[in-house]
Amino acid sequence: MNQIRGAQSISFEVSPYIISSGSVAGSKEAEGPLGKLFDMTNQDDLFGAKTWEEAESNMQKEACVLALGKAHVKPQEVRFLFGGDLLRQGVATSMGVESLQIPLFGLYGACSTSGEALALSAMSVAAGYGERMLAVTSSHFGSAEKEFRFPLGYASQRPLSAHWTVTGSGAFLVGAEKSHVRISGVTVGKIVDYGLKDSQNMGACMAPAAMDTIVQNLEDFGRSVEDYDRIITGDLGYVGQDILFDLMQGKGYDIRIKHMDCGMVIFDQKSQDTHAGGSGCGCAAVTLSSYILPKIRKGEWKRVLFVPTGALLSTVSFNEGASIPGIAHGIVLEHVN
Amino acid sequence: MNQIRGAQSISFEVSPYIISSGSVAGSKEAEGPLGKLFDMTNQDDLFGAKTWEEAESNMQKEACVLALGKAHVKPQEVRFLFGGDLLRQGVATSMGVESLQIPLFGLYGACSTSGEALALSAMSVAAGYGERMLAVTSSHFGSAEKEFRFPLGYASQRPLSAHWTVTGSGAFLVGAEKSHVRISGVTVGKIVDYGLKDSQNMGACMAPAAMDTIVQNLEDFGRSVEDYDRIITGDLGYVGQDILFDLMQGKGYDIRIKHMDCGMVIFDQKSQDTHAGGSGCGCAAVTLSSYILPKIRKGEWKRVLFVPTGALLSTVSFNEGASIPGIAHGIVLEHVN
Repeated sequence: MNQIRGAQSISFEVSPYIISSGSVAGSKEAEGPLGKLFDMTNQDDLFGAKTWEEAESNMQKEACVLALGKAHVKPQEVRFLFGGDLLRQGVATSMGVESLQIPLFGLYGACSTSGEALALSAMSVAAGYGERMLAVTSSHFGSAEKEFRFPLGYASQRPLSAHWTVTGSGAFLVGAEKSHVRISGVTVGKIVDYGLKDSQNMGACMAPAAMDTIVQNLEDFGRSVEDYDRIITGDLGYVGQDILFDLMQGKGYDIRIKHMDCGMVIFDQKSQDTHAGGSGCGCAAVTLSSYILPKIRKGEWKRVLFVPTGALLSTVSFNEGASIPGIAHGIVLEHVN
Repeated sequence: MNQIRGAQSISFEVSPYIISSGSVAGSKEAEGPLGKLFDMTNQDDLFGAKTWEEAESNMQKEACVLALGKAHVKPQEVRFLFGGDLLRQGVATSMGVESLQIPLFGLYGACSTSGEALALSAMSVAAGYGERMLAVTSSHFGSAEKEFRFPLGYASQRPLSAHWTVTGSGAFLVGAEKSHVRISGVTVGKIVDYGLKDSQNMGACMAPAAMDTIVQNLEDFGRSVEDYDRIITGDLGYVGQDILFDLMQGKGYDIRIKHMDCGMVIFDQKSQDTHAGGSGCGCAAVTLSSYILPKIRKGEWKRVLFVPTGALLSTVSFNEGASIPGIAHGIVLEHVN
């Protein structure tokens, strides 16, 4: 039987596995440190489409097709699809996965959505609701700037605490069939609100949520920081990482040598002028698919806590003066021989 | 063990129950046919807030508190919350449920979200991931018009095929504890796209999805229309109902005497000038809580197929000329002695 652990976690007795994954990224990501690791990149960030939104949908579909193709699985052999993105009413997902015709659970967890999708996929497989689930998320620099900030044509200046939204999509086939990476547990995040209101400093808004979920995970599973080879956040960036370290220290945990942030590894901060680092649903997803999973698969990392982080704002709530709370979901990934 | 049924359904061996529910609605809904049945209504559609968005959040919180209070359950005794709304980045939910501090799965399924939330809550309880889950959704006429159409101050004319977004929120406590209503199964919907592009005729956009999910449910469970006392869609309205009847007829099913649509019962079409009927995440949710569940609880209806319907559009996708696909999730509700 699956087990409830502590206040917010589940451990899976019979673990679901990440059978395969696919990553698609844009031109700037292709020039970054992980550029060679993505399954597919495109010099044209429109991915053959006429709009940024359609481009994002195309990436999402490609990522799904890649994950399915690598495992020789047809869409109709996938029971449910869990997917989401950053756009209003999740259109990148609805338009992206439509042609796959897999029964869909649409999600919204801001940039934590890849964690949410993996958690629900793993929970559904472990409960016997199907042999295979597909988890997919995406973000696109063009569509995200248009949605949250300013249209690209305005050429607005960005503060140094601002993130660069990753153009990318990652899809994960989660199932009962054995692979070298299992999902051994999940920690479902709560909304954490420190009252911050600066939409150009998402790292600060999300760091408290990351801290909350990491601490909860350690407590729920009775583990210490040393029990993980890496604790990997989604897109806190340079500013958020500093805050996370301080907050964790305040709780008596030192995670400095174990911590990695997807937003900090996906771009070269200096040469790529990406300020606080990469962000977006796609950031954690493509880094997991292209960089983290291969290391776990090979056994280089035995146990990783993957914690995608999200900032829960909209342009409307922000303009009305509401604060920007954060949320983060923790996924425990383990190497299997 | 829970059982996979057919292509898209699950039947629960040990059924989760709807332990309690709460409904909050606005002034127009209070004047409608169901007005006296809601747990709470307010003559002030701002619900004490300064913005429509905050008003919607307040309703959502109240609906949750009502559902919890009726069952004498504290927020910390609820394992996970599944919630969503129609606004960009689901802010009504993030802001609404924040103070409850229940680990959150944010959802987006347009007006089908109440079905999605109930399905995932039931799946989580049946899998043993917790004793109790909370499913909540909301919509608000003011915030929805601002989000999708025109600010209210413009006083735009509405075509007769347009819906009137329901101001309301419904919350459902789903758990292992026995009640008189059990969730015996779910049918997870696929995206169904007939290529329609008229955002003022949502009924037509959603009817094909409703048909698809109802037919799939009957096939997956090996049932006929007669096996249900009612087949209840979320917000097809008068236009959508006609189309649904035709589409069902085309598949060899006559559901006319069994069908009810929440969007058609919540307002009095003539005296309230609501055109095609009510719509929104809140429409199906408050109708379920205030009108449908009591009938099942009393045994007046023994088995009901509840099918909230959603139209997957955003103002961006719509303005870019994309079609409006639909999605619908089916929840099988049964009377228990």
